Amino acid sequence: MTRIDERATNELRPVQMEVDYLIHPEGSVLITVGQTKVICTATVEDKVPPFLRGQGKGWITAEYSMLPRATNSRNRREASAGKISGRTMEIQRLIGRALRAVVDLEKLGERTLWIDCDVIQADGGTRTASITGAFVAMAMAIGKLELPAFPVTDFLAATSVGIDSEHGAILDLNYVEDSSAEVDMNLVMTGSGQFVELQGTGEESTFTRAQLNELLDLGESGIQQLIGKQKEVLGSLAQKIGEEVKSNL
Amino acid sequence: MTRIDERATNELRPVQMEVDYLIHPEGSVLITVGQTKVICTATVEDKVPPFLRGQGKGWITAEYSMLPRATNSRNRREASAGKISGRTMEIQRLIGRALRAVVDLEKLGERTLWIDCDVIQADGGTRTASITGAFVAMAMAIGKLELPAFPVTDFLAATSVGIDSEHGAILDLNYVEDSSAEVDMNLVMTGSGQFVELQGTGEESTFTRAQLNELLDLGESGIQQLIGKQKEVLGSLAQKIGEEVKSNL
Amino acid sequence: MTRIDERATNELRPVQMEVDYLIHPEGSVLITVGQTKVICTATVEDKVPPFLRGQGKGWITAEYSMLPRATNSRNRREASAGKISGRTMEIQRLIGRALRAVVDLEKLGERTLWIDCDVIQADGGTRTASITGAFVAMAMAIGKLELPAFPVTDFLAATSVGIDSEHGAILDLNYVEDSSAEVDMNLVMTGSGQFVELQGTGEESTFTRAQLNELLDLGESGIQQLIGKQKEVLGSLAQKIGEEVKSNL
Amino acid sequence: MTRIDERATNELRPVQMEVDYLIHPEGSVLITVGQTKVICTATVEDKVPPFLRGQGKGWITAEYSMLPRATNSRNRREASAGKISGRTMEIQRLIGRALRAVVDLEKLGERTLWIDCDVIQADGGTRTASITGAFVAMAMAIGKLELPAFPVTDFLAATSVGIDSEHGAILDLNYVEDSSAEVDMNLVMTGSGQFVELQGTGEESTFTRAQLNELLDLGESGIQQLIGKQKEVLGSLAQKIGEEVKSNL
Amino acid sequence: MTRIDERATNELRPVQMEVDYLIHPEGSVLITVGQTKVICTATVEDKVPPFLRGQGKGWITAEYSMLPRATNSRNRREASAGKISGRTMEIQRLIGRALRAVVDLEKLGERTLWIDCDVIQADGGTRTASITGAFVAMAMAIGKLELPAFPVTDFLAATSVGIDSEHGAILDLNYVEDSSAEVDMNLVMTGSGQFVELQGTGEESTFTRAQLNELLDLGESGIQQLIGKQKEVLGSLAQKIGEEVKSNL
Amino acid sequence: MTRIDERATNELRPVQMEVDYLIHPEGSVLITVGQTKVICTATVEDKVPPFLRGQGKGWITAEYSMLPRATNSRNRREASAGKISGRTMEIQRLIGRALRAVVDLEKLGERTLWIDCDVIQADGGTRTASITGAFVAMAMAIGKLELPAFPVTDFLAATSVGIDSEHGAILDLNYVEDSSAEVDMNLVMTGSGQFVELQGTGEESTFTRAQLNELLDLGESGIQQLIGKQKEVLGSLAQKIGEEVKSNL
Repeated sequence: MTRIDERATNELRPVQMEVDYLIHPEGSVLITVGQTKVICTATVEDKVPPFLRGQGKGWITAEYSMLPRATNSRNRREASAGKISGRTMEIQRLIGRALRAVVDLEKLGERTLWIDCDVIQADGGTRTASITGAFVAMAMAIGKLELPAFPVTDFLAATSVGIDSEHGAILDLNYVEDSSAEVDMNLVMTGSGQFVELQGTGEESTFTRAQLNELLDLGESGIQQLIGKQKEVLGSLAQKIGEEVKSNL
Repeated sequence: MTRIDERATNELRPVQMEVDYLIHPEGSVLITVGQTKVICTATVEDKVPPFLRGQGKGWITAEYSMLPRATNSRNRREASAGKISGRTMEIQRLIGRALRAVVDLEKLGERTLWIDCDVIQADGGTRTASITGAFVAMAMAIGKLELPAFPVTDFLAATSVGIDSEHGAILDLNYVEDSSAEVDMNLVMTGSGQFVELQGTGEESTFTRAQLNELLDLGESGIQQLIGKQKEVLGSLAQKIGEEVKSNL
Repeated sequence: MTRIDERATNELRPVQMEVDYLIHPEGSVLITVGQTKVICTATVEDKVPPFLRGQGKGWITAEYSMLPRATNSRNRREASAGKISGRTMEIQRLIGRALRAVVDLEKLGERTLWIDCDVIQADGGTRTASITGAFVAMAMAIGKLELPAFPVTDFLAATSVGIDSEHGAILDLNYVEDSSAEVDMNLVMTGSGQFVELQGTGEESTFTRAQLNELLDLGESGIQQLIGKQKEVLGSLAQKIGEEVKSNL
Repeated sequence: MTRIDERATNELRPVQMEVDYLIHPEGSVLITVGQTKVICTATVEDKVPPFLRGQGKGWITAEYSMLPRATNSRNRREASAGKISGRTMEIQRLIGRALRAVVDLEKLGERTLWIDCDVIQADGGTRTASITGAFVAMAMAIGKLELPAFPVTDFLAATSVGIDSEHGAILDLNYVEDSSAEVDMNLVMTGSGQFVELQGTGEESTFTRAQLNELLDLGESGIQQLIGKQKEVLGSLAQKIGEEVKSNL
Repeated sequence: MTRIDERATNELRPVQMEVDYLIHPEGSVLITVGQTKVICTATVEDKVPPFLRGQGKGWITAEYSMLPRATNSRNRREASAGKISGRTMEIQRLIGRALRAVVDLEKLGERTLWIDCDVIQADGGTRTASITGAFVAMAMAIGKLELPAFPVTDFLAATSVGIDSEHGAILDLNYVEDSSAEVDMNLVMTGSGQFVELQGTGEESTFTRAQLNELLDLGESGIQQLIGKQKEVLGSLAQKIGEEVKSNL
Repeated sequence: MTRIDERATNELRPVQMEVDYLIHPEGSVLITVGQTKVICTATVEDKVPPFLRGQGKGWITAEYSMLPRATNSRNRREASAGKISGRTMEIQRLIGRALRAVVDLEKLGERTLWIDCDVIQADGGTRTASITGAFVAMAMAIGKLELPAFPVTDFLAATSVGIDSEHGAILDLNYVEDSSAEVDMNLVMTGSGQFVELQGTGEESTFTRAQLNELLDLGESGIQQLIGKQKEVLGSLAQKIGEEVKSNL
């Protein structure tokens, strides 16, 4: 039985990445995954947070937000509410942590990369689309810096997998699927197939070791396809990253 | 002498409005004025704020925000700062007030229109582009309601005018022009050529009555061109509004 | 037909300014316009905000507040609410901007003037009374500084004008008139008759160019009377400002 | 040796109370104690806080604030800071608690009295002047209610006493005296000479039982003089309160 | 090579749970895991959050906090900072989500269980100790309700596992181990050996599928030991839960 | 007639102090007074607040908080509410002020002592138990500093006294007694029998001079017993403080 949007269980939604989407940021991309659209930008700031000062190392931090009508019913702006929700904080911590896993912060030098992921339309998978797009924006911004050594050590992308009573394990859940899934897992992996983040949860449900293995297989195949797309849009930067990967073997 | 972007002093920047830009909102448009890009959406909520309850009247309220990298250097998010700046508040009050001037709130009935203007790229004139785009998104959302009488009473658009030491009075200032202008004025007018809002300021400068008259002439001509563009994208809705204008004469 | 308080349409309410109203501030005045009473103070601080440091220029910033029972029903304190309303922010930005138009910030040197306008009783026109009173407090504070060149370049006062279905254009609206006016405009002008700020709005209404001209005439006459009062209370300082005006012609 | 302002150690500063100082509030007074000036208002609201609903009892709550330039150097507004200081909270809790001690909340019925004390000029003793003035504003507001039984049970006033290395025990400290006092005590008492609040503190110092007794004697004499002033300005209301006091004996 | 605290790589720290630690809450436990000490309480409230009203279902929500000196250097209180950190939000969302996986919310009925986890001493693993302790406090509070059907469907406990350059995969990391681990994973599992939450992260590092499997084996063995401890302290309640588990097979 | 917990009117509840209760802080104690339990810690920070910098003096500041279920019904966390209540602010200001009265801040040198009092179980008298416990934690932390001169000048403890319609004056009120007391007074005194703080309040009641004297006698006897307990747990530090007291006579 096919999924609500006619996909096979192991099929990603259509993905596009429009690079240099905005004129001001050092790196920017509009990533589209099915109906989910996220503007990812990377900004270079020539200083680091207080806890890192004087250590010769850089930092990467991320912020995530949704436009009020990115979703079906309007969400109150966090600026109006005067505080950031737990969900938003969790997502922005995840994005920053994931990106830091593929950047050599010492090679980056004492500077901060600010990653902004603004969801302009949401249909499930906004945090994984943000990571996949943010990697591209970040790589572009780093590519413009004149650094003695190139600090990006590998490609990085993310997707979601889940278990649904009708189809079993499925790849890249849209909003309707995500709402009815029994188990939901976000995976962040490198181009070399290593895990960076693994967050699986079965709210009001649980899952077995066998199911976990099936989800991991599915997620890995999706991520390798996403990294293929990243390589296309990154052009010569992709080659540079590829050389870093080889030299780290 | 031509302006920095080769325009004549009485020339608008190129304007596009991409309607139905997003899938979720009742009305949405991506308005582009030169390099300034704003996503405007309109949301219908079936209740009114406490001060209007039980009066059979509707309400229109607006929120305005910029992505952190809409500008040349990154701005801190207001959600992170935990509060909305004075500038943002002033702009969102202006947008709501302006739109309410061309909607018969009794015909709208007890519902609220939430207008969201999110600037994704800024190059001067973000508040006037927001008003011009918000009118289109609002008209589209109202067009989808089944109402006994059509509540939009006229077209509405906005532009900026200013005085600059080199060119004198100029229309539709971009960011560079706005930064160096001696006098800066925002005008909101209806299709019938009436004033809705007039905000002129000469920070560290002042202006005479003659200069004011020159600015008003310039602004009016720009606004009528913008309303021409609105009519193109609104199609049959534009006709409906036109009929309202005639019936109100 | 006379107005609710027996005034002619072009008549100001009675105005008093009690200078040196408080013992601590460098400049202070209690301004009374009809039943509206505002305490305006000016404080000199020997540093400037970060964005101006090291440029040899000064800054003027204003804060505005109302006592909870300045109005007919009690307003919640903004300190209790934990945030400042959009209306308050708009007013304090207006006051600061208006004052900066008649002060040469380079002659002021690297110092900040803090202007505080606290409304103790409100009956319409609190923002314009604040500007008119704040100019006096500010001039007094500047007069006490020992500066190589006197930085106040002109007088400055403000009033409101409006259009009302019964009387047409009227000057200096009280609260009842302001609540029922169709068009409401605040004007800030210099002693030389130049415009500094012009904010006209027709919420739920609009106005024509002819009406605008009538309002501007009315406002200008009121402002010149207010400046006459300022000259009386400023004494020798008024003379000093007068000399600056002449030297700038 | 006389005090800095030539007073005897047991002498109050000059006290005035200007009743009906503002036109809007149900009760208002401008109290002046030496150079300290506080506007006290009382507002009647026809409901009680959630914890009292349906019990047939009323409530009295107080808010206290200072204008930024009530003091020698400018204080940041609590509304700008976004939060109320510990000092302010302590004072407003004290004022509310003190007033509730002389009002029969059941006779007041299900309504709230909001007391606002706004210090427009400070020279020590702002909290005690606030209590003394607030009692008058509150009595006036209650006097305008049509109640089956009069709820004010006694007069109430407050003053400060302290110990100073030069003069020993002194009454009604001004700012300079308060800053150098070793022991500082605020006393709130009724017309019948009973204690309502007693707050003595010896920051960086301590005091003996004998010193405490001396301070209490001094404070009691000052409070009885303040209550004499209250009786003068309250007129027939003072008589009504006097009758309540007698009937409660 | 043994670990810093002499443990084997697959050895938990000593665990105690002191039930009924506080007199007021419906359920309370002080859980000690090595030097980590957390007070867990459960409170029953007879209503549910707005999004669940009228659905006959209950809710479980958690809050987590640390005393300022739970850690080696003093942390600023979140109440003083005026906002809750991203880390705290992430942890409290995790605790609530995990507990909801083993409670049948319909059997719980329209009531909310508030779980509070207050860390009084921290030495690594505070979030997993919180979950393990919170399960006990929650079961005790539910045990006191008179419900038609028992809503706890299984036991639940959590621990951490990680990879360290010296020892490889290790169980139940203390603070020093956690700080130097290359990979850190938190596991929440049921008594039946199903996964509830799985959060693995390799900040500045990555991990392979083989390493993941080793970590999962280690974590499962630790969790079963923790559930053994829970059974001891829960007594007859443990039996009741055991019956639920059987009936759900 | 004996009290609800069988105590005589002049009898303290059982008191224990468990010193070095936590491993991280420089000083820590768990104080138990009847059912009231407070964790008090003292932290040394090697800098002072801005207003004291460069004066060679130290500072002592306190923070107070309650666990949500320290009380019979759950209190919302102040971190969740985003602000600290007036009651909390008043208490933490009291604790800091009281401790500063028995420490020579010049001998302490330019460092800050942070005192944290976290109530884990409340049954009346949490602020006085906090002061009594905080003195011990503070003395322990100071004892670990290597200072040229010992800065603690005397012992310090606190208790509550009150008047109750059934028993008259009573010592050390528990929660039930505190709720029904007509007069409530907190006393902070030194080992030498001097007053440091005296806060008496008769909400909805008043008290006479004779009653005050009775309360002071009762409080003093309780405080001397508490100081006896402090001496027991402080051991050799108690001797050191005793020597300071003597040398200051």
